[in-house]
Amino acid sequence: MKARIEIRLKPGILDPQGKAIGGALAGLGYSGLGEVRQGKLIEIDLPTATDTESAARDLDAMCKTLLANPVTEDFSVTLSE
Amino acid sequence: MKARIEIRLKPGILDPQGKAIGGALAGLGYSGLGEVRQGKLIEIDLPTATDTESAARDLDAMCKTLLANPVTEDFSVTLSE
Repeated sequence: MKARIEIRLKPGILDPQGKAIGGALAGLGYSGLGEVRQGKLIEIDLPTATDTESAARDLDAMCKTLLANPVTEDFSVTLSE
Repeated sequence: MKARIEIRLKPGILDPQGKAIGGALAGLGYSGLGEVRQGKLIEIDLPTATDTESAARDLDAMCKTLLANPVTEDFSVTLSE
């Protein structure tokens, strides 16, 4: 099983990295860009996992305890074969 | 229009950040984890874009010139309304 975790800053939380990217793109001549936000994408191989429900529970706990900061970030987990 | 860009290290390129995450998760007691890879997720608002084809072309150029390192990273762009 493979897990795919997307971690984004919550709406309204200032994203200086996204702002820097937007500024650099504008400097390169790309106009018409609105807000730019940068998030994280974490992919985890789960070679021995068979039970989707317990894997999803574990991944949720991993996000809450280590991968994401629940105060400032939202996360979503997707499992696939 | 909104663009969503996923940037991943190419397969075979060492991912120390992913390795660190895997090690930290193992330290927290999560076993059965295979490879962990970390990538970037960039979301760009394109409030004035109407032509999907030219937006995709611009985004491809942005990735190649600024957002991704084409030597070590793969990227994929998805456009949505």
